[in-house]
Amino acid sequence: MEEIHRPTLEERAAECEREQTLSCTVAYDGAPFAGFAKQPGQLTVQGELEGALALLFRRPVDVVCAGRTDAGVHARGQVVSFEVDGDELRGRSLHNLRRSLNALTREGIVVRSVDERPRGFSARFDAQWREYRYFLATGDTPPVFTERTAWYVGPNLDIAAMERGAAHLIGEHDFKSFCMAASAVGKPTCRNVSEISIASEEILGEPHRVITVRGNAFLHSMVRTIVGTLAMVGRGQRDPDWVAEVLAARDRQAAGENAPAKGLVFWSVAY
Amino acid sequence: MEEIHRPTLEERAAECEREQTLSCTVAYDGAPFAGFAKQPGQLTVQGELEGALALLFRRPVDVVCAGRTDAGVHARGQVVSFEVDGDELRGRSLHNLRRSLNALTREGIVVRSVDERPRGFSARFDAQWREYRYFLATGDTPPVFTERTAWYVGPNLDIAAMERGAAHLIGEHDFKSFCMAASAVGKPTCRNVSEISIASEEILGEPHRVITVRGNAFLHSMVRTIVGTLAMVGRGQRDPDWVAEVLAARDRQAAGENAPAKGLVFWSVAY
Repeated sequence: MEEIHRPTLEERAAECEREQTLSCTVAYDGAPFAGFAKQPGQLTVQGELEGALALLFRRPVDVVCAGRTDAGVHARGQVVSFEVDGDELRGRSLHNLRRSLNALTREGIVVRSVDERPRGFSARFDAQWREYRYFLATGDTPPVFTERTAWYVGPNLDIAAMERGAAHLIGEHDFKSFCMAASAVGKPTCRNVSEISIASEEILGEPHRVITVRGNAFLHSMVRTIVGTLAMVGRGQRDPDWVAEVLAARDRQAAGENAPAKGLVFWSVAY
Repeated sequence: MEEIHRPTLEERAAECEREQTLSCTVAYDGAPFAGFAKQPGQLTVQGELEGALALLFRRPVDVVCAGRTDAGVHARGQVVSFEVDGDELRGRSLHNLRRSLNALTREGIVVRSVDERPRGFSARFDAQWREYRYFLATGDTPPVFTERTAWYVGPNLDIAAMERGAAHLIGEHDFKSFCMAASAVGKPTCRNVSEISIASEEILGEPHRVITVRGNAFLHSMVRTIVGTLAMVGRGQRDPDWVAEVLAARDRQAAGENAPAKGLVFWSVAY
C-alpha cells in the first residue's frame, strides 16, 4: 500500500500558482439548443462545452458565460471562462485545445479561440459591455437564406421613427418593463444601454435591417423586448414617444411582444 | 346534347391575341431539392412551381428556366417563363398571382415577382447573360451561420494567384474541360465568360470570399469546376498558369474537383 503524501505549505502554494484561467470565444446556431444554460435532459450549449472539457481534462469543469442566451438565440462571440491546473495544459497549445474542443462538440457550435486570461478572470463579471445584434428581413417577400437567422417584418418599417423611439432607452434606466416578469422579481433591473443603432445590410442578396444594442448588461429577454417594442413603432402602431411611457411604466405588460429568438445574435463582449 | 361550336378564323386570331407570357423571379434554398429540373418521384423546383401553377390555372403549365441548377445549388434570381391565356388572368393582379404561388409552394422557395413579358419571351433563350456567385467561408474556424450556403476553405487562400488564374478564362473559349463529361458528348461547349471577380464579404460576422462569374451561358457544373480549379490555385497546389493548360486540354480530367453545390447561388439573369 502506498504511503499517503501530505502536501507541505510550499507545495500547496505552488499548486495555486499553477492554476490558470482560460476563456473560449464561442459561436453557435441557437436553433437546436434549449438555450445556453445547462438543464437536465436538455441539449444546451453549456452542457455541450462542459461535456467536451470534461472529456479533455478527465474531470468535471464548470464554465462561466458572458450572457445566458435563451433557447433559439444565436451567438457569434459568446465568451466562457474556466479554471485549469497548469499541469493539465502540459504539452497542449491553446490552438490544439481549440481543435480538440471543436472535435468534441456537435455541429452548430464552433470554438473560435481559446485564450489565456489573468488568474481569476470571469467571463461574466469582468465584462465591460455586451453587444447584441438583431436581424430583421425587410424584403417584399420572406428571405430564403436567412430564414433561420432573421425575423421577417416586410419592407415598410419607418426607421426614423424607430430611431426616435430607441433614443428614449439610451442611458441608465430601470428596464423592468423590458424584462420577463418571472425572472425580475426582487432583483435589480437597472441597466445602462450605451447604443441602439439601425443599419441596412444586404445578406446573400436579401435586404435586412440590423439593430445593434450595446449595454453594460442585459435582463432576461431585454433585447428581444426592445426590438419587439421598436417594431411596433416602425410599423406605425405606436408613436416613438410611447417607448418612454413603456420605460416609465416598469411593467412588462406595457411593452411590445418579444421579437422571435431566431433573429437575435449575441455579437461580442468587451473586457 | 350541346352543339359543338367550331371557331371562326376571327375567333382563332383573337385567341392568339389573348395569349400572354409571364415570368417569375424565384429564389430557393437548394438543399432539399434534387435540382431545378423535373424528375419523376423527386422533389424539384420545377415540379413545385409547375404544381402550383397547375393548381392555380387548373391545367398543366410548362415552365422554361434561365438555368437548370443542380441538386443542392441555390438561387437568388432564377427566372422561369410560361404562357397563359388572357382569360386566365381575369381578375388576378400579378401581385395576387405572386401571393398565391408563394402560398402554394413549399418553404424554401420564394417567388420574388411575377412580371409580364413580351409575347413569346423565353427565360432561357432571351437571356443576355447569367451571373452566379460562389461563397467561400474563409475564417480560422468553420462558419456557423453560412454552414448551408458556403464552402469552408479556411483563411489561407492566395487571392491574387486565383485572380491571375481566372484571367485565363475570360472571353470566348471552349470550356469542355469545365463540363461534366457525360453531358458534353456531341454538344457545343463554347461559352463566353465576361467576368470572374473575387470580393471580400462579411456575412453575419463571418469572413467570406465571394467569386462572381458572369457569362452568356454555362455548361453543366461549369461554375463549380471553375471554383474548384481556382481553389487549387488559391491553396498553392497549382500555379495560376495551370488554368490555361486546363482550358486548352478540353478534358474534364484536367481540371480541379467540383466545388460543393451548397456554396453556389444562381444570382441573376439579364434580358
